[in-house]
Amino acid sequence: MATLLDRINSPRDLKGLSASQLERLAEEIRSRIVETVSVTGGHLGPNLGVVELTLALHTVLDTPRDKLIWDVGHQAYPHKLVTGRRERFHTLRQFGGISGFPRIAESPYDAFGTAHAGTSISAALGYALARDRLGEDYAVVAVMGDGAFTAGMAMEALNHAGDLGVALVVVLNDNEMSIAPNVGAFSEYLTRLRTDRTIHRARRDLEAIMRRIPAIGPSMVKAAERLTDTVRQLLVPGALFEELGFSYYGPIDGHNISLLQRVLREAIARRRPVVIHVSTEKGRGYKPAESDPWRLHAMRPAAKVGGAADKAATAPSYSHVFADTLIELAKEDPRIVAITAAMPDGTGLDRFQKVFPDRMLDVGIAEQHAVTLAGGLSLGGLKPVVAIYSTFLQRAYDQVIHDICLQNLDVTFGVDRGGLVGDDGPTHHGVFDMAYLRTVPNAVLMAAKDEAELRDMVKTALDYPGPAFVRYPRGQGVGVSLDRPPQGLPLGKAELVREGADIGIIAVGPMVYTALEAAERLTGHGIDAAVLNLRFIKPIDVEAIVELALATRRIITIEEGALAGGVGSAVLEVLADRGITDVRVTRLGIGDEFIEHGSVSKLRELCGLTASHLVDAALTLTGNTAQNLALGE
Amino acid sequence: MATLLDRINSPRDLKGLSASQLERLAEEIRSRIVETVSVTGGHLGPNLGVVELTLALHTVLDTPRDKLIWDVGHQAYPHKLVTGRRERFHTLRQFGGISGFPRIAESPYDAFGTAHAGTSISAALGYALARDRLGEDYAVVAVMGDGAFTAGMAMEALNHAGDLGVALVVVLNDNEMSIAPNVGAFSEYLTRLRTDRTIHRARRDLEAIMRRIPAIGPSMVKAAERLTDTVRQLLVPGALFEELGFSYYGPIDGHNISLLQRVLREAIARRRPVVIHVSTEKGRGYKPAESDPWRLHAMRPAAKVGGAADKAATAPSYSHVFADTLIELAKEDPRIVAITAAMPDGTGLDRFQKVFPDRMLDVGIAEQHAVTLAGGLSLGGLKPVVAIYSTFLQRAYDQVIHDICLQNLDVTFGVDRGGLVGDDGPTHHGVFDMAYLRTVPNAVLMAAKDEAELRDMVKTALDYPGPAFVRYPRGQGVGVSLDRPPQGLPLGKAELVREGADIGIIAVGPMVYTALEAAERLTGHGIDAAVLNLRFIKPIDVEAIVELALATRRIITIEEGALAGGVGSAVLEVLADRGITDVRVTRLGIGDEFIEHGSVSKLRELCGLTASHLVDAALTLTGNTAQNLALGE
Repeated sequence: MATLLDRINSPRDLKGLSASQLERLAEEIRSRIVETVSVTGGHLGPNLGVVELTLALHTVLDTPRDKLIWDVGHQAYPHKLVTGRRERFHTLRQFGGISGFPRIAESPYDAFGTAHAGTSISAALGYALARDRLGEDYAVVAVMGDGAFTAGMAMEALNHAGDLGVALVVVLNDNEMSIAPNVGAFSEYLTRLRTDRTIHRARRDLEAIMRRIPAIGPSMVKAAERLTDTVRQLLVPGALFEELGFSYYGPIDGHNISLLQRVLREAIARRRPVVIHVSTEKGRGYKPAESDPWRLHAMRPAAKVGGAADKAATAPSYSHVFADTLIELAKEDPRIVAITAAMPDGTGLDRFQKVFPDRMLDVGIAEQHAVTLAGGLSLGGLKPVVAIYSTFLQRAYDQVIHDICLQNLDVTFGVDRGGLVGDDGPTHHGVFDMAYLRTVPNAVLMAAKDEAELRDMVKTALDYPGPAFVRYPRGQGVGVSLDRPPQGLPLGKAELVREGADIGIIAVGPMVYTALEAAERLTGHGIDAAVLNLRFIKPIDVEAIVELALATRRIITIEEGALAGGVGSAVLEVLADRGITDVRVTRLGIGDEFIEHGSVSKLRELCGLTASHLVDAALTLTGNTAQNLALGE
Repeated sequence: MATLLDRINSPRDLKGLSASQLERLAEEIRSRIVETVSVTGGHLGPNLGVVELTLALHTVLDTPRDKLIWDVGHQAYPHKLVTGRRERFHTLRQFGGISGFPRIAESPYDAFGTAHAGTSISAALGYALARDRLGEDYAVVAVMGDGAFTAGMAMEALNHAGDLGVALVVVLNDNEMSIAPNVGAFSEYLTRLRTDRTIHRARRDLEAIMRRIPAIGPSMVKAAERLTDTVRQLLVPGALFEELGFSYYGPIDGHNISLLQRVLREAIARRRPVVIHVSTEKGRGYKPAESDPWRLHAMRPAAKVGGAADKAATAPSYSHVFADTLIELAKEDPRIVAITAAMPDGTGLDRFQKVFPDRMLDVGIAEQHAVTLAGGLSLGGLKPVVAIYSTFLQRAYDQVIHDICLQNLDVTFGVDRGGLVGDDGPTHHGVFDMAYLRTVPNAVLMAAKDEAELRDMVKTALDYPGPAFVRYPRGQGVGVSLDRPPQGLPLGKAELVREGADIGIIAVGPMVYTALEAAERLTGHGIDAAVLNLRFIKPIDVEAIVELALATRRIITIEEGALAGGVGSAVLEVLADRGITDVRVTRLGIGDEFIEHGSVSKLRELCGLTASHLVDAALTLTGNTAQNLALGE
C-alpha cells in the first residue's frame, strides 16, 4: 500500500493534507525512522518526540524561504524526511549518505548547520537582523530542546534578541531531559511552568475578587485597579522569558498538530521575539524509547549490535575503562570528584555516579562552567576530573587556558572521543585537540595507545599536580588485559615498542597498533622499522625522538588528528630546535579539511591512516618504488 | 601626616576601625589609586566604584580563610591596597611589579585569578562544593559587574549553583555599564529593579486591600488568602534570580559601608545561594571619571600620554586604522555590518558606529554569541565583520570551528591585539591565535606587518567569500602612509621585502620591521639576509618558502606568538612535506610559558623578539661566533 509519506517530496506536499492525514503521516514518519535507525544507527528518542512539531512547522512556514533552525540538530530526521530526502534517508549517517545533523551543504531546507548545543538563537537572530536590514520578509524559527538552554551562549543570544525586539520565534521543545535527565535551576523552572497550577488559579482568584471590588469601598478602587494591572502582568507563566524581552506562549501540547499550527501562526504574526514552550515526549510512539528515553536517545547500527565476537568487539569501551579506573583510584583518594557536562552516559561517568553519587557533578550542557568549576574545586582542595568529548572541549578553550593552565591548577581532563568518531561526522570528530592543547603552557598532554595504557595515564594525570589531559578514542579498546593495577608513567617519556634500524615510526594513541602492523609488513620488504609510542604530546620526549631520528634518518609520524600544528609538527620542531637537518620526515594525519561522516575504518582509509598507507610512506621514504610495491599489499 | 591607609597591612587592621574611619580610609584609597594609576596606567573607574564595597567585604569576611573572588578583576586595586600590597602598589602593571588583576601566585588573598568576564561564579561554586565535601567552614563571595552577567558562562554557573543550593554569595555590582554602556535585556531588567516603584507600590496596595477582605464576604476569603500568598511570592524584586534558585537582596547603596556590612552578614548567614544587588557609581569620587566613566574606564601610563612626538607615537592605532578602513569599505558596500562583544571603544568600532549606527551590533560580553550571530548574518545575505581581541576569541573557538569554518561562511574577523599586549599581562596577550586558528580548515589567516597592510588585508578579507581572519597588534602603527585606498592582496602570497643570498628571515606581522632592521645590521657582518613577509599564515605560500629555503639553506622564522604549533612550525611542515632536508631552521617566538605583564618592548626583549636576537640567531646559523659578535651590537 502506498503510504502518505511516499507522496511527500517537499513541504509543499504537506499543505493540502487534512488534520487526520497529518496524524497518519506522523505515524508513518515514526515507523520510517524506527526502521531506518535500527539499521543505520542514530538518534531515536529526540526524533520521535518532534514529529508533530515538524509537521506543524512545515505546514505553517514557507520553507526554505522561511528559515527553520534545529538546535543540536539530532532531532531533524522528520524534517529531512519531508524536505526531499526521503529516498536517501536509508543512507543516514553512512559514508556519502545524508548526515545525522542539518547541513547547509545538504539541503536548502537546512538553514543552519548544527550539532553542538545552544547555537540556534544566535544563528536565527543573525538571519532576522539580515532580513530586516535587507528589507526582506520571512519568518525565522529556532527549535531548541530544554537541555540546550543551559548552554551559556543560548542565554547570551536570548539576552541580545530580547533587547533588540526583532521578529523571531524560539520553540522551546521541553521533553524534560536533554541527553541525560536535565539538571539546573532552569530545568526546575520549566517543571514549575508545566506542572504548577498556582499561577492559573491565582489569575482566577484575582478576577473573582476584583469583580467584588465595589464592596471594598471607593477609597480602595484606585489601589485595586493599579494592583490588578501589576498582578496580571506578574501572573503570566514564563516570567523569566518575559523579563528577557520575549513574549511567552505555553506550555502547550507538542503532539497536537492543529494547536501547534495555531500558536505558531499567532507567534509569527506578533513580529517580535516569542518563546513557544512546547511539551513533548521523547521517544513518543515507540514503546522501548518511551519507557527508557535516556538509553534510547541514540542507537548503534544493527551490524554493530551483537556483531561478530572478535576481541575488539567484546573489549570494553575506552569511556568505560576511563570511568572504571577513576572509580578504582577514587576509592583510594576521597578528594577525587568527577564532572560531566550533560554526558554521564557517553563519558562512562554514570558508572562513577553509581558508586560515588555525591562525588559526581553533572553541570548540564555548560562546558565553560564545567572547566572553571574544576578550577575552583582544585583550589578548594579536591582533585577534580573533567570527562568531556574532544569536540566539546573546544567550547571551554579559553577556560582551559586562563582558568586552569595559567594558574597551573591540578585538574585532570579525560578527553574522550579524540580522533575520528565515525557516523556523527565533522561536528563530532575530535581532531583539533592535540594542536590547540599543545600550544598552551603548563598543559601535560597524553594519548593512550590502548585501554591498558589509558588506565596508566589516568593515574599519571591524577598524580601530576598540574593540568593534565588524557586523550582516548571513541569506541571499544583493542582487547588487552586490564588485570594490572594502573601505574604512573614517567612524565614526558615515550615508549619504544619496536626496535628497528631503517626507519622510525612515531605514533600517537591507537595509531601505535597501526604502526606495529605496518612494521611487521615492512619486514617483508626487508625494511626494519622501529615504532615509538609517543605517549606524551607534551612534554614531548626530545631525547627519544632525537635518538630515533639520528639512528634511522627517516621518520614517519602518524596521528589521528589535524596535521597543521599537530604531533608531526611537534616532532619537526624538536628536530629543528636541535639543529638536526639530514632527517626525512613524512607526516601522516588529517589534512586541511573537515572530514565527513562514515565508519571510522572508512574514514581512516580516506585520511590515509591505515597500515597500508604507512607501508606505502615507508617504502617511498626508503627509496623503494612505493607505487608498485604498495599494490601488492 | 600619617594616613590611615599606611597602617593597613592586612584586612585584620580594618576590623577595629569605626564607621567614620572607614569612610576616611575610603577617600584615602581613592586618592592613592588616582595618584598611582595616573603614573602607571590601569583601570580607574571600576576601582573607584568599589572602594566602600571592598572595605565592607574585608571587614565582614575573614580573608584569606573566606574566599573572595573578583570577576574580571580590574576592580581589585582597593582589595590589593588592603591586603598587604600597599607598599608595592606603585609597581602596578610594571614589569616585575604587581599585576593589574588578581593572581593566586601574587597573594593568598587572591582566591582566583581573573581577567576574562564571567568566571567568578563557577570558581566560587567550586570552592563552596569543595568546602562542603571536606567539611570545612568558610564563606565564598564572588563580586561580579552587571556587564559580566551577559557572559554565557555566568548564566551556566548561576543555573548550576541555584540548583545545588550551596552557601555562596554573589555580589552583583551594578554600575549601569560594563566597559561600554551595557546592552541586552538583562541590563534593562536590572534597570527596572533599580528604578521601578511599581513592585513596591503593588505590595502596599495588596496589603491595604487584604486588610479589607472581610467586606468582600466569606466566600472570597479562601481565594483571597491563596491569592495573597501567590502574589506576595511574585511581588519580590529579583524574580529572575529567585527563579534560578537564588535569594535576592537589593538593590542597595554600594557606597554605604554599614548597610553593605549588614546585608553581607545576613546573606552569609543564610547558608544558601544569595545575590546581593549593589548599586555603585563607576569612577565615584573622581570628577573626570564620574562625568565620563566610559572613557576613564582605563588610563594609559603618564609617560605615554603626550609623550615624545616620534613617528610611531603619532601614528594612528591599528584598531583605529581597522575601523576607518571598514568605514571606507562599508560606504561602498551596504551589506557590511560590524559586531563587537562589549568593546566598541577598544576595537575602534565606536567610530564605525558613529557613521553607521544601524549597522553596528554590540552584543555585550558574549563572544560565543557574537561569532554564531555573524554566521546567521552571513547566511542572511550580509557581510559581517567581527572585531575581537585575540585573547577573547578563545571564548568562541568552538563557534569559529563549527558555525563559521565548517560551513565556510563569509565572515571577516578583525583579530585585534594579536601578540604581546604589555601591561595587562598573560590574560590579555594574544599569543595562541596563530596556532589555534591555522589548524582549522577553511580559515584564511593573515597578519599585518603595518597599518597600511592592515588596510589591504581588511579589503582582502572582505573580498574573500569565506572565513578570513586578520591579525594585528595592540597600539600604534609604525607610521607609514595611509593615503592609498586599500587594495586586495593575492591570496596566499607572501611578500619578499628584501632580497638576500645568505640567510632567509621569514617574518610575520610587525616582526617584518624587526627583521628588516636585523638584515641591515647583518650587512655589517658581511651577511646578506633576505626578508620574507609571510602575510598569509594560511594558506601559506609554499613556493616562496621553498624558494627561499633552497636559495639560502638557512631560515629564521620570527613571530610574536607561541612557538608550539605556530608559524615557524608551519614553515617546518612546508619543508618536510616537500622533502627538503638540508635546510637549517631557527624559530624565534614565544616559548612554552605564560608571559608576565610589562611594557611590550621589555617583554619582546624577554622573549627574544628583537633585532639583536635575530642578528644573534643569524650569526649562529651562519657559523659566526655569535656570542662574541652579538656583544658588539
